[in-house]
Formats: sequence, structure tokens, C-alpha cells
Amino acid sequence: MKNILKTGLVVSAILLLAGCGKLSFDSDSSSTTSTKSGSYQTTGTASDNTYQGVIKNGRYQVSKSRGLMLTNNNQNGNTYNVRSMETGLQSISQKEFSTDKYDFEEGQLLSTSTTRKWLGRQKGKYSKSSDTDNALGLNPASNGKTGENSRTPIYLQQILEQDYMVSSGSSMSLGGISIGLGMNSVDYYTKTSYGATYETKISDADLMAQGKAMAKKVVARIRKMKGVKSNTPIVVGIYKQAAQDSLVGGTYQSYVVSTSGDNIGSWHSMNEQNEVLPLVDGKKGINSTVANDFSNFSTQIRSFFPTLAGVTAQAHYEDGQLSGLKITVNTQFYGQTEINSFTQYVVTAASKYLPSGANIEIDVQSVQGMQAFAERKTGEKSFYTHVFDSY
Amino acid sequence: MKNILKTGLVVSAILLLAGCGKLSFDSDSSSTTSTKSGSYQTTGTASDNTYQGVIKNGRYQVSKSRGLMLTNNNQNGNTYNVRSMETGLQSISQKEFSTDKYDFEEGQLLSTSTTRKWLGRQKGKYSKSSDTDNALGLNPASNGKTGENSRTPIYLQQILEQDYMVSSGSSMSLGGISIGLGMNSVDYYTKTSYGATYETKISDADLMAQGKAMAKKVVARIRKMKGVKSNTPIVVGIYKQAAQDSLVGGTYQSYVVSTSGDNIGSWHSMNEQNEVLPLVDGKKGINSTVANDFSNFSTQIRSFFPTLAGVTAQAHYEDGQLSGLKITVNTQFYGQTEINSFTQYVVTAASKYLPSGANIEIDVQSVQGMQAFAERKTGEKSFYTHVFDSY
Repeated sequence: MKNILKTGLVVSAILLLAGCGKLSFDSDSSSTTSTKSGSYQTTGTASDNTYQGVIKNGRYQVSKSRGLMLTNNNQNGNTYNVRSMETGLQSISQKEFSTDKYDFEEGQLLSTSTTRKWLGRQKGKYSKSSDTDNALGLNPASNGKTGENSRTPIYLQQILEQDYMVSSGSSMSLGGISIGLGMNSVDYYTKTSYGATYETKISDADLMAQGKAMAKKVVARIRKMKGVKSNTPIVVGIYKQAAQDSLVGGTYQSYVVSTSGDNIGSWHSMNEQNEVLPLVDGKKGINSTVANDFSNFSTQIRSFFPTLAGVTAQAHYEDGQLSGLKITVNTQFYGQTEINSFTQYVVTAASKYLPSGANIEIDVQSVQGMQAFAERKTGEKSFYTHVFDSY
Repeated sequence: MKNILKTGLVVSAILLLAGCGKLSFDSDSSSTTSTKSGSYQTTGTASDNTYQGVIKNGRYQVSKSRGLMLTNNNQNGNTYNVRSMETGLQSISQKEFSTDKYDFEEGQLLSTSTTRKWLGRQKGKYSKSSDTDNALGLNPASNGKTGENSRTPIYLQQILEQDYMVSSGSSMSLGGISIGLGMNSVDYYTKTSYGATYETKISDADLMAQGKAMAKKVVARIRKMKGVKSNTPIVVGIYKQAAQDSLVGGTYQSYVVSTSGDNIGSWHSMNEQNEVLPLVDGKKGINSTVANDFSNFSTQIRSFFPTLAGVTAQAHYEDGQLSGLKITVNTQFYGQTEINSFTQYVVTAASKYLPSGANIEIDVQSVQGMQAFAERKTGEKSFYTHVFDSY
């Protein structure tokens, strides 16, 4: 109710506010690879080890292809994949492009139409009138079969581009490019239009073999694009998408850096895993100590209120070690002082039960929105807490 | 989509989780004023200058009367009033009950039925079969008229109780009581059931006169309750509710402390005001510098994205000085890296344009929920920021 009211009246209030001149958006895409003109500024860093974003002529440069990625994702994936794929590619990029020297820009090289072609299938004997089959398609041509195990699946579901910019005087130029290839672990398809959905499972070996072959093609194609020099580093990461019903995104499996020409160098494999807690259906977790700690925490806080709806977590592991827990506590609507007390109690329980060596984030949610937030980063002793209230 | 998915699956996951024994809730209200038995613990403090909450027999003691308050509020008010009335009463309470010595407990003295009676009208000549007219009603009897200016309005809309507990050994006892009287600045009423809504405006002078008279009665009644000693301090605050369509809550106008018996001592008036920014309809603001600063901030950040939906703020003033701004930025759904860059940009703009001597909170919202949060408390130099993402 609060949010509905707020949104409704915000919109009407805004119409009355002066200074709308800057709201128009320049959708001219002719400046895609122009790196020598225009006035640049950056967003300013909010914390250490994050990139500043590039602002050109007073406006943030949105990605040319992200809209398409989302469209595809609504059909065949979940939004956790989209977000974790973006965050993960930035993490990989930090290994090559230091946050001191490079600023971040949403991908400007790959246009929507190019991305659509690359995500298509190769033209082949069984091609139909479908507009996604084309000579540039990175997915293999259909073999004409429709059986879950006999057909040729769609391996590549998403392409993500991130640009890393370097300043030279008052200008900026493209200093590096990162590409994420979002590979399906499960390909969802229909045999007829609007028909039932079937699944083709893709093995890790097939996923990696396909992804590595695609990476070579992608590097060669990007290397030829306007604004990309022969020695502009190009990072390519292979991202394994989580299944459609997953409550956590996938992870990057491997990445490579092409430092010049079409040579893509050697692959660096990454040992990262995500899981959702609590474990269900008797599933064996990645780390039983973490699962038990979470279970104790959950039991403790669920005794507080008569009607707490649920406690879940996304756990992230790197090299077998827990690196972070993002916990969501769903509550009904309570009073402000109840939320205050509950938040204190949750933080006390988190300090007592949860692993100390990992990032811990706790979001207290109700149907009215977020009620409170608590965070303890790795190495910190106490939680930062904030309860969302109102004057 | 993310949240819908999450909530749906959370619920099903929880049903499978072990350890449900503690979830049952003891709704027996016989222990309302029992302060000598049971096992006590507290929630642990999350930050300085906040009360710890009392937990009895492993369970948080919810308020006996808060449900009723909310019911009334849905009919005649808004949720901003509920929350700010609670927070405001805790602030007043801190003047009498130090957070070092006292712990917080939701009100346990006023039951739902008592509160309902007190919120009713006095029985009178024009009383109908309505169940809210009764001898204990704090609102005056109806004069039988229905005209906006000729009728007798409902002055008292909500009653809030907070208890402040002191430890003695392993037990806890009631050390102080705070009561908030939520007074209507506008009384909304219908002339016939389900008919059109009419408004009776209530002057500040009438509101205060009624509130002060009610405070005397309330103190006398509470003083007689079981568990309340002759010298238990009773704080009563008069809260002026904001109008139904307000996007910010009301403020406390005055408070009093009864230290013994029915004597309520002298009134302390409070100079606090809330307003919503941007100002609309040519309204003159409380402080034009604050309104201009906010306008500059808003213009700056609205140039960032092509489709930013709106920027509003709740401003809180104490003694004519800005003490806090709670800003809500509504965006469409963007990518994770776009939200990262946007948050950096918002914080940079906030540091540049917003007043440095007040608490600043910025919530970045989309229809998918909260995307990012930034906060700078009075006296701090930089913002704490958090972007909500996903593994």
C-alpha cells in the first residue's frame, strides 16, 4: 500500500518538476565506437575495488545489446543468471583491467542486430524460415530432430559485452573488452509453437567444448571491429547458466585473454559454485558445515515471531570455500519497533551461528518491500544494519 | 519476477525444513502484566542509542493492541503515520528511559478490547447501536450533526503503548510506560454506510486541547493497572497524524511525564515538521535552501538514465533545522552494472548537492524491489552504499 501510493504520487509529482531538458535520450547509435570525441566524466567510486562508470555528454552509455539478452532470458532462463553473469564478468575483468586505471562502460561494440545474429543457429539443411538461422550464428545448425537427446540443442543463450576505458587527457579510449558467453546447462524448447516445453540437458564437457570454440570465433570477429586495436586485450568468460527454476544464478567456468590478434591464449579454469539453502529433497550440499550453520541460524530466528514466512540463502563457493551468503528473510508486515527488535535479533543470531570468513548479507523482506538490511563483509567484525523506516 | 519466483519457492522450501517445533505461538494473554516470571533475554543491540528488545521464553512479546491500530489506520489514515508514530515515541522515550538501563517491550498493558473502548466515542444523547460508543470512550459524544463543520469529529485515532523494562537479576520488571495519542488533523467520515467520504478539519488548538485532556485520563487509568506502581514514570506524547494522502507521516507536538500518581506534570512542546520534496503546486517549503538543494540533486541524477521515473524525499525538521532526508529514486529495471554505476553517480551527486548536516538516506527502487541503498549519518563524511545483487 505504501509503495503503491508512493509510486503513483511520485509520477504525478515529477510531471510538475522543472528542468526536464536533460531527460531526452540520444538514441543515435552512430557514436558506437567513437572514442575520440564528446565530453567524458565518471560516476565516482562508491567503494574500493569497483570501477567508475563512464558518462559521455552528461549521460550514461547504456548497452546496445542488453535489451535483447533480457528478452531471450525471459523465454529461456531466469533473472538471477542475468545479474550474476554481469557481476561475474566484472570480477574476471578485474584480473586484467585494474580498477585504478580502467573505467567501466556498458558494451558499445555489439549492436542488437549483431547480437541477435550471433545467438542464432548456423544455416543448415534443416533451416526453416526462422530468422535466427544465419551465416553468423554461433549455435550449430539444427539436425532436424526434436527428441530431447537426439536433437542439436541451443548451446549459447546470451552474449554480454563490457568495455573498459582508459583516460588520455580529456578524452577516453577503449582499453579492453570483456565478453561473457552464457551457455545453457539445460536448453528449453518446444516442438510446436506454444506447445509443451521440453528440456535437453547439456553435459559440462559439451558446454565447455562449444564455448571454447565460440570464444575463438568471437575474438576473431571483435578484433576486426572499428575502434578495436590489434593489441586491445579481449577477455572471454564461459558462463554456465543455472536452470530455469533455480533460485540462484550460474557461475563462470573458465576464461581466456586474447592479448593480440586472433590468438586466444590458454584457458584459466575457475572453481566456483552456487547453491540455495536450506537444502531440499535430501540433496547433499557443497559443504555440510555451512548447511548446518545456516540451519541453526534459521531455526533460531524462526522462533522469534509467530508467523515468519521463510529463511533462504544463496551460498557462493570459490575453490571449495564459502565466500558469501546472501540471506533473505521473508516476514509478514510488522510494526516499526518489531522490525527494529527483529533486526537486532537476526544480527545477534548471525554473529553466533554463521561462518565468520565469508561475506554475509541479510535482507528482511515483506510483501511491502524491504524492511531491513544487514551486512558483514569478510574480515569485518560486526554487521552494518539498516532498518527502513519513514518520517 | 525475481521476487515472485523467490517467494513462491521459499514457501515450498520451508515446508520441508526440519525444526518447526518453535514455530507455534502462545496466544494466551494471561501473562499480560506478569513481570516476575518467565525466562528473559534481549535481542542484542544493533547500534548505539537503540533499545534492546525483550524476549520472553524464547519469543518476542508482540503488542496486544497494535493489530487494532492498523485496522483503524487502513480506514482512516496511512501507514506512514503508523511507522513514524512508533519511531517518534521511542525517540521521546529516550529522553526519560536511557537505552543503557532500559530494554524495550511492545505494549502489554492495553488489550485490544480496552484500546477499542478507549478509541470510541463517549455515550451520549445521539448514540446509536454502534459498538464504539461507551463510557470509556475518549472521543466526545456525537452531537447528532453530519456537516463537516457542525459535527463533533473523532479526535483520537490511534493509541500506541510502549513498555520500558529494567533488569533485576534474572528477572525483568516494568520500569516505564510510554503512550502515544494519535490525533486526527483531518477526520474522514461517511454520512451513510459505504457512502462518500467527507472531511472535518481539526485546528491545532483543538487537537492539542483534546489531546491534553485525554492524556490526563489515560495516565489516571494506566496508573490503576496491575503491574504499574505509583511511581512508574508514564510518558504521554501527542502525535498529529498526517492527512490520508500524505507521503510522509505526522509528528509529535508535545509530551508530558507523569512521575507519580495522576499528576501529569508540565507539557514539553516539540518543534518538529515533515514535508515531501519536490514541492508541488507552488507550495512554499519549510526551508527554501533545502528544497533548492534537493531540486539540484534531482535534476543532476535524472540526466543519467533516459527513463528514470522519479525522485522524491521525505524531509524532517527539528527546531527549524533539517535533521534528515529520506530519498526514494524510482527506476525501471536495469542491468546489474547499470545499477552499480547509477548508485555511484547518485552518491557523488548527493555528496555535492545535499546538505551535510543531516542524515541522508537514498533508496533506489524498481518495481522488482529495492535495487540499492546509500546512507550518510549526521557527522559522517562518506556514504555507506550497498547494491542488492545475486550470486
